[in-house]
Amino acid sequence: MSHPNPLRVALFGAGRIGKVHAKNIADNSNVELAWICDPFVDGAQALVEQYGGRSTASTDEVFGDSSVGAIIIGSPTNTHIDLISRAQSQGLAVLCEKPIDLDIDRVREYQKQMAAAAAVPFMLGFNRRFDPSYGSIHARFVAGEIGELEQLNITSRDPAPAPPSYIATSGGIFRDMTIHDLDLARFFIPDIVEVTAVGSNLFSDYIAEAGDYDTATVLLRSRRGQIVTIVNSRRCVFGFDQRMEAFGSEGMLAATNVTPTKVLSYTKDVTAAAEPYLPFFLERYAESYKVELDAFVQAVQTGAACKPDFDDGMDALVLANAALESARSGKTVNVADDTK
Amino acid sequence: MSHPNPLRVALFGAGRIGKVHAKNIADNSNVELAWICDPFVDGAQALVEQYGGRSTASTDEVFGDSSVGAIIIGSPTNTHIDLISRAQSQGLAVLCEKPIDLDIDRVREYQKQMAAAAAVPFMLGFNRRFDPSYGSIHARFVAGEIGELEQLNITSRDPAPAPPSYIATSGGIFRDMTIHDLDLARFFIPDIVEVTAVGSNLFSDYIAEAGDYDTATVLLRSRRGQIVTIVNSRRCVFGFDQRMEAFGSEGMLAATNVTPTKVLSYTKDVTAAAEPYLPFFLERYAESYKVELDAFVQAVQTGAACKPDFDDGMDALVLANAALESARSGKTVNVADDTK
Amino acid sequence: MSHPNPLRVALFGAGRIGKVHAKNIADNSNVELAWICDPFVDGAQALVEQYGGRSTASTDEVFGDSSVGAIIIGSPTNTHIDLISRAQSQGLAVLCEKPIDLDIDRVREYQKQMAAAAAVPFMLGFNRRFDPSYGSIHARFVAGEIGELEQLNITSRDPAPAPPSYIATSGGIFRDMTIHDLDLARFFIPDIVEVTAVGSNLFSDYIAEAGDYDTATVLLRSRRGQIVTIVNSRRCVFGFDQRMEAFGSEGMLAATNVTPTKVLSYTKDVTAAAEPYLPFFLERYAESYKVELDAFVQAVQTGAACKPDFDDGMDALVLANAALESARSGKTVNVADDTK
Amino acid sequence: MSHPNPLRVALFGAGRIGKVHAKNIADNSNVELAWICDPFVDGAQALVEQYGGRSTASTDEVFGDSSVGAIIIGSPTNTHIDLISRAQSQGLAVLCEKPIDLDIDRVREYQKQMAAAAAVPFMLGFNRRFDPSYGSIHARFVAGEIGELEQLNITSRDPAPAPPSYIATSGGIFRDMTIHDLDLARFFIPDIVEVTAVGSNLFSDYIAEAGDYDTATVLLRSRRGQIVTIVNSRRCVFGFDQRMEAFGSEGMLAATNVTPTKVLSYTKDVTAAAEPYLPFFLERYAESYKVELDAFVQAVQTGAACKPDFDDGMDALVLANAALESARSGKTVNVADDTK
Repeated sequence: MSHPNPLRVALFGAGRIGKVHAKNIADNSNVELAWICDPFVDGAQALVEQYGGRSTASTDEVFGDSSVGAIIIGSPTNTHIDLISRAQSQGLAVLCEKPIDLDIDRVREYQKQMAAAAAVPFMLGFNRRFDPSYGSIHARFVAGEIGELEQLNITSRDPAPAPPSYIATSGGIFRDMTIHDLDLARFFIPDIVEVTAVGSNLFSDYIAEAGDYDTATVLLRSRRGQIVTIVNSRRCVFGFDQRMEAFGSEGMLAATNVTPTKVLSYTKDVTAAAEPYLPFFLERYAESYKVELDAFVQAVQTGAACKPDFDDGMDALVLANAALESARSGKTVNVADDTK
Repeated sequence: MSHPNPLRVALFGAGRIGKVHAKNIADNSNVELAWICDPFVDGAQALVEQYGGRSTASTDEVFGDSSVGAIIIGSPTNTHIDLISRAQSQGLAVLCEKPIDLDIDRVREYQKQMAAAAAVPFMLGFNRRFDPSYGSIHARFVAGEIGELEQLNITSRDPAPAPPSYIATSGGIFRDMTIHDLDLARFFIPDIVEVTAVGSNLFSDYIAEAGDYDTATVLLRSRRGQIVTIVNSRRCVFGFDQRMEAFGSEGMLAATNVTPTKVLSYTKDVTAAAEPYLPFFLERYAESYKVELDAFVQAVQTGAACKPDFDDGMDALVLANAALESARSGKTVNVADDTK
Repeated sequence: MSHPNPLRVALFGAGRIGKVHAKNIADNSNVELAWICDPFVDGAQALVEQYGGRSTASTDEVFGDSSVGAIIIGSPTNTHIDLISRAQSQGLAVLCEKPIDLDIDRVREYQKQMAAAAAVPFMLGFNRRFDPSYGSIHARFVAGEIGELEQLNITSRDPAPAPPSYIATSGGIFRDMTIHDLDLARFFIPDIVEVTAVGSNLFSDYIAEAGDYDTATVLLRSRRGQIVTIVNSRRCVFGFDQRMEAFGSEGMLAATNVTPTKVLSYTKDVTAAAEPYLPFFLERYAESYKVELDAFVQAVQTGAACKPDFDDGMDALVLANAALESARSGKTVNVADDTK
Repeated sequence: MSHPNPLRVALFGAGRIGKVHAKNIADNSNVELAWICDPFVDGAQALVEQYGGRSTASTDEVFGDSSVGAIIIGSPTNTHIDLISRAQSQGLAVLCEKPIDLDIDRVREYQKQMAAAAAVPFMLGFNRRFDPSYGSIHARFVAGEIGELEQLNITSRDPAPAPPSYIATSGGIFRDMTIHDLDLARFFIPDIVEVTAVGSNLFSDYIAEAGDYDTATVLLRSRRGQIVTIVNSRRCVFGFDQRMEAFGSEGMLAATNVTPTKVLSYTKDVTAAAEPYLPFFLERYAESYKVELDAFVQAVQTGAACKPDFDDGMDALVLANAALESARSGKTVNVADDTK
């Protein structure tokens, strides 16, 4: 049932992720696309023609429209905090793509201002919490199905390394890629106190030259001693490798990965062979983005708390920074005092 | 990209299947919901409030609106031919739920009239052809991946028997339920010449009392000798059991069934246990209905041939009738002269 | 623990199946290999050197050895009844490879004699009953896990057609190959009353020329109406395709097929791809032959009834004959009066 | 074909693992059971009655029998080096259960003596190298199927914690349990240079009181930077959890775990549910022990090199010690100079 007063939303960024949000907004009857704002206004206009709303290159124009109730931020990372700040100062709800910022000091500074201000709904776009399989494991875990959670194993491999230009400003594998897995870990085990990481350079010269790793494993330990293992690679020939296992005292719940269809093939070489995994996050987490938008809109409309929130974004960044420090130093990093 | 001139559609029937079509029309930017027509006008109105268009109980009102370009028929079976006839006489494209009619003579009679008239786009709603997994198997088979197709095995079990009132007018298991499998078989092997069937009454007294079977297996043979096996039941405790295997000279392609998520559970009793199958056709074939609508709209807008068409509906009914005859007589029924 | 008085066994036939039995006898501490008898005595001698016992080409020599307590018959089908008869007249237990004979009249005639004589342990080598997976399904079904059994679906495909010389004397697909599936069906549902079969010639000219089918599906119906579906082919490029599903009122138990290891491969083309199935029955049912031998020896040593027995062999042959008759006539064949 | 001169073997230890070896020796025609030696001579005698050979409580009696060509050591860890030393001084081949000893200094000391002596065949019983699935992955990896190996992920969970008495002398989780995984890692990636470990106490008080961990993850890094992840737990309600994934530049090979049969169940709660994993190592690695024995006997009889050898045992122990040090110190431990 559509909402009698759909939430009018302005979307910042008409790139890859902006397209996802534009389409999902158009398909969601509880929300209305008011604006698409991008300095490259032709891109914004192309999306507007497909999904509605108006295009602009002017941030001011968007913030001047009093009919807008929320903004969705899909623009480059270095624009996030300014847009968040401006929106929140006007009382506009915000759904912001991760990360809040690559600089933990800037994040912390803004958080203090934010805490001082009145509460405005804020959701960080860690979309994996909204994946149907991960979400189902979480719900079943919370319901007690696996007893005490003891080990969480996350496998997360990109299909292929991003180009050098992307790597250069990405903040490195831990802040760019692992951060999703760190938040997924915190979704199940929020109170992480220790971070241990190992990184390697196995296949990409330009990633090595950028001082970054192409392959890494991160271990997290909670206050109670639960151990999280995150296995990462920037390359995987069989697609976007996204899986997890939650192991507990009474059993285990595992999310296998998604393939385009349920077809299995049998030949002289293989039996029961599934198709390669979906290419990348736009396909693999297509459903997650929809559920995320729904959750955001519902929280705004009902006044419920947004989750994941600003602090989740900050804590994931703390863990990512600690992983980098650990990989470089060969020492476990204690973050007990750095996270909420 | 949305079509500049979306196809305006009138939907007949605001019941279970009408709701599916109404939602899919609302979500598809190439088509516009003009009318929802149902004698129970409150039902139509409720859908209109959610998905747009206008409601009416009057068929005349719909056919009097010259802006309408196509109709979708989701009303009771006995209304199908009249609506098809009226639409086609006005040159309106038709997407009609199966079956065309339960009486093969009425279908044949109408087909002759229809052939005499100018061609108007007609698609029969055998939605399983549009299921992503079955469609993928078909495409890979056509591309030669399994060589010559030799055996096709279809498993199709409903979660639970329909109520007595439904059974009474359903036309029996072969015409009501198996007919989908018969069309799926014909999607792969159109030239069926022999039908052999066995039916039993194992668990439902009221189905037996209605002179119908609750359990059946149907064998089809093509002109070349390819053998199709269809295993049916009106009850399945683990959900809507929908699977198929296409076995050929070079290999096999199999479609396993769909579950709500990709989560597997491990307990003291089981390992790698998937969830129960989806409850029924509305969930299991949700995607098929969308793809079907897309295919219909595209065919209408581009002038391409609709598939499955009227003759597919007729031939599936001939096979269903032959299955009933075979189950009752204990003899293989030759349909070589009765199908196109 | 080895038996204090191991059963001394004479093995007839040193061919493919004889080798399996010779090895299993050598590995089983409750049984002792006394003789291997084969007209081609060099073959027998080669096995004796590997597994013990003495070789001979003389049947008389074997039956003259009073230390022998049982015989295992792995010689050609046309020798079976004579060997059974001679062994039973001397009170020797018999484990005989299927079929008893291709001629049901000879089998019936011998059965009458046999019934007249004192009971001597007789087991027919329908080894699939002893397969760990099929056996487990049977035990769980008997324990009530799936409620009332309603449908049994057996898939059984050979990897490649036997050579023309074998086909010529095989008795045809139903008596040679399907007979195993017919016995497996009877293991679950003994009281079959109707047989319906469809056969085709799709890929082998010489099988067609021999008047035999290369592809077939057989339907069985029990007195209560339970339906068994058997899907057969003489060729399968991905190995020896052996699977079954037992579907009941409370659930389903399915046996997937065996692969050499538990390794799955992931490449740019496939994910979670298992290896091809095992090549043929010697590999696929290796374990079954061992369990069968164990069951036979235990029955002999404890005086328990052998199962499957002579009547099981006879009834499977009746069903096979009925399948052939049905495939040729296009009519369901009633066997209610022809089976026990 | 049995070997003309079977290798005569003396088995030390008639406990759990001794029984496995006794049975496998009895079933292997290339080897002959000469002695079973155990201070608890009744246990040895019971095995002798089942599998042959002679029993004794006297080590001297065994080493005085000049017909013996090899010994298999399944006695307590603290007896290993003495038995190895005595056997090697007499030129007897040795197959020794892991670990060589819990004290790396003793192992190193003996290794120096050993190197001074003439080479006598020595194999360490890291049986997982001989598991059909792990062995197959190794062979396919060596054949180039996955390109460059980049990540190796091993999951290894015991079904339930060993009793306090066992834990007390076990040497701790890393030297007792992880050591198998460390050797499996070295089977694929021998040149490990860094060890990082995290251990926790989540469910067993007596393990904690013994100063040991019940849950741990170990990371290894090779000279080239390949990363191995080992996930361990002393408890797993769904059985003995033994799995691995070898991820490379061209694909991945994964070994799923073994279940008793290939049966899947479908109920109102689950679909395609496999059985719980096998209970523990005697069942899970039953085949590995056989293949290991075969490999040992062949190496002795042909003069081929034994693998895994003494140095493999020593290096695995070095890694286990480093894991313990890392878990306690929170620092990565460099072992580049401590392994061969």
